[in-house]
Amino acid sequence: MTATVYRKHLFDIPENLIYLDGNSLGPLPRAVAERVGSVVTKQWGEKLIKGWNECQWMQQPSDVGDRVAKLIGAPPNSVVMGDTLSIKVYQALSAALQLNPDRYVILSDTGNFPTDLYMAQGLIDTLGSAYSLKLVEPEDVINAIDDTVAAVMLTQVDYRTGRLHDLDAITSKTHQAGAISIWDLAHSAGALPVDLTKSHCDFAVGCSYKYLNGGPGAPAFIYTRPDLIASINPALAGWLGHDAPFAFEPNYRPAASINRMRVGTPPVLQMSALDAALDVWDTVDMQLLRQVSMELGDYFIKEVESRCPQLALVSPRDAKQRGSQVSFAFEQGYAAMRALIERGVIGDFRAPNIMRFGFTPLYVDRSDVAAAVDVLEEIMAREIWKEPQYQVVSAVT
Amino acid sequence: MTATVYRKHLFDIPENLIYLDGNSLGPLPRAVAERVGSVVTKQWGEKLIKGWNECQWMQQPSDVGDRVAKLIGAPPNSVVMGDTLSIKVYQALSAALQLNPDRYVILSDTGNFPTDLYMAQGLIDTLGSAYSLKLVEPEDVINAIDDTVAAVMLTQVDYRTGRLHDLDAITSKTHQAGAISIWDLAHSAGALPVDLTKSHCDFAVGCSYKYLNGGPGAPAFIYTRPDLIASINPALAGWLGHDAPFAFEPNYRPAASINRMRVGTPPVLQMSALDAALDVWDTVDMQLLRQVSMELGDYFIKEVESRCPQLALVSPRDAKQRGSQVSFAFEQGYAAMRALIERGVIGDFRAPNIMRFGFTPLYVDRSDVAAAVDVLEEIMAREIWKEPQYQVVSAVT
Repeated sequence: MTATVYRKHLFDIPENLIYLDGNSLGPLPRAVAERVGSVVTKQWGEKLIKGWNECQWMQQPSDVGDRVAKLIGAPPNSVVMGDTLSIKVYQALSAALQLNPDRYVILSDTGNFPTDLYMAQGLIDTLGSAYSLKLVEPEDVINAIDDTVAAVMLTQVDYRTGRLHDLDAITSKTHQAGAISIWDLAHSAGALPVDLTKSHCDFAVGCSYKYLNGGPGAPAFIYTRPDLIASINPALAGWLGHDAPFAFEPNYRPAASINRMRVGTPPVLQMSALDAALDVWDTVDMQLLRQVSMELGDYFIKEVESRCPQLALVSPRDAKQRGSQVSFAFEQGYAAMRALIERGVIGDFRAPNIMRFGFTPLYVDRSDVAAAVDVLEEIMAREIWKEPQYQVVSAVT
Repeated sequence: MTATVYRKHLFDIPENLIYLDGNSLGPLPRAVAERVGSVVTKQWGEKLIKGWNECQWMQQPSDVGDRVAKLIGAPPNSVVMGDTLSIKVYQALSAALQLNPDRYVILSDTGNFPTDLYMAQGLIDTLGSAYSLKLVEPEDVINAIDDTVAAVMLTQVDYRTGRLHDLDAITSKTHQAGAISIWDLAHSAGALPVDLTKSHCDFAVGCSYKYLNGGPGAPAFIYTRPDLIASINPALAGWLGHDAPFAFEPNYRPAASINRMRVGTPPVLQMSALDAALDVWDTVDMQLLRQVSMELGDYFIKEVESRCPQLALVSPRDAKQRGSQVSFAFEQGYAAMRALIERGVIGDFRAPNIMRFGFTPLYVDRSDVAAAVDVLEEIMAREIWKEPQYQVVSAVT
């Protein structure tokens, strides 16, 4: 471990850019381009089909999974990479309902990321009408966990507000009530310390293109508590989750290991990009990273509140209650964010009125925060967001 | 259209290698390395989050889908890319069962690729016991289609034998019986002419890393007949299949278009590699490609049968009855294939005893076939496969 977590030299970030959007898409780690180039030309190009054996393409989902496991407090052979977060939610949820066959309520909160809720709705439609998805306000979750609940499915960090759930406390309550816990760590992995083993939670899922910097469309991960793996009959019974994929047996027979949560052929280029990106994390002290991230967020809040009175904090003021992002509400937030982006300060916008800023201490420091607030203050003070070019809404934000 | 389909100059294939495994993993098209490098460094590296808008990452699954559509006789806006073939099978099958709610039999054949069968088994387990998967021998499929069958799910080209189903005839019989047709085109797309519009089939799925040369783990495709799209309630209800993904609504509301078959965040690096790979196809006459492929296969069969009596043809002798591959059975096929590979002739092996050879006229010509048979003849005549180094079995073949 080194005494600092700042290692911007390991990233290729354009000069004069202040990137406060690692909570949406992490920047390019310097090692990735060469690795991907080599996988394309030396592995695919020269090894062709032999790459599956000789370049370990087939084992990559579990090898990379073991690297992600270290960042979320999970043991080896409990995490596997693949597919998208949406698919991994479906897998975890269908497995959870199998493990709790006499209950029919999936509990989640209104702050969950929509795709988690959509995937639950799709699964419920597939399973039939006995099941229901119950949504409560985030602060009401813990009291809504009762003995009707089959599974509690939550995202630890709210994608809009940054509000942080108490993973340990909710998991404990979930288990007391005889329910299964599923945590979406999309905004947690690489943002704050997570100890899945200690929490004893049942399933966790997440993506690797945010704080883990795996690149656009990088594969998702799924964690299954080791003692549960053998009990799961995967709903998405793909051939690479089979115990012997290359025996080509007519009947599905799940792998004994976490590999049963694999589905189809792994995306080798994306998996290799992620693998190279994870090198950045080898010596990062996650407790220190969290401390710096909280300090940066606190500093940003203090400066914005004193210099931009038009913006209203929607994130928890207490750093311990939020993840690695800070969000402010502003009615013209979309236009203001576009003005910020044009001036080299990259955050993002979430409907209807939320400006999000992520504080990722691997490549953002206090001087970046200060500079970002300078630009924001000018945009607000001079009402630059009113300029017509910022008022055009595009499809993707 | 040009008068030849041979365009090996558009690929980076190692010298002195005869690649007869494009049916498993296509070789590297020359344009891919530069494109992927540019996506990594210029798009992800420099545009960061803005890439989703400015580099059309978000539209790529349908843009690339339209390019694949042209190769399988499908209209624009009927094909979308993403996930893996296994996931696309699940989507198609669950949609088919919705469209035929009073029937409970999924009909397939024993020659189907195992993951298709496994995904059906997983879906059936999820749906409950009313459903069953009925498997018959490939030649018995057409007579097994009756009014109990909800969906007929088949792979057009058998992955082991290369046996080709009559897509039009089976689809027609399927519809006469009031059932839904699902075709897996994994070994068809880019291998032979497919006219999905003419066949009137309901769903088609496939992968893009075989004949389409999209690279290891390239995204899959799904076709839905345009008039069916509006009736489908996706089982895998991911946010990018939502009508307004960035409105972040709590309830799933499927996109009006084929986009409702999208699930999660698209794998931008893989999608871009595939997009570049598809340039190879821009001027290929698929009828001519099929004709050359049949001639190459016929020539291979004739030469092998006359010079390697130890091998028994398992593919249909009539070229019109097989896809773009030729398979021979040999008890020591695994060892013989390893000896071939070591001598620069790349085919592959499928348990228990099948040696597969793919004939892909984009980069394989008659002289390659002749040279491959020379090597094979030597291995068989001198029983080189008996050498101990070829007798060690590895996990992936």
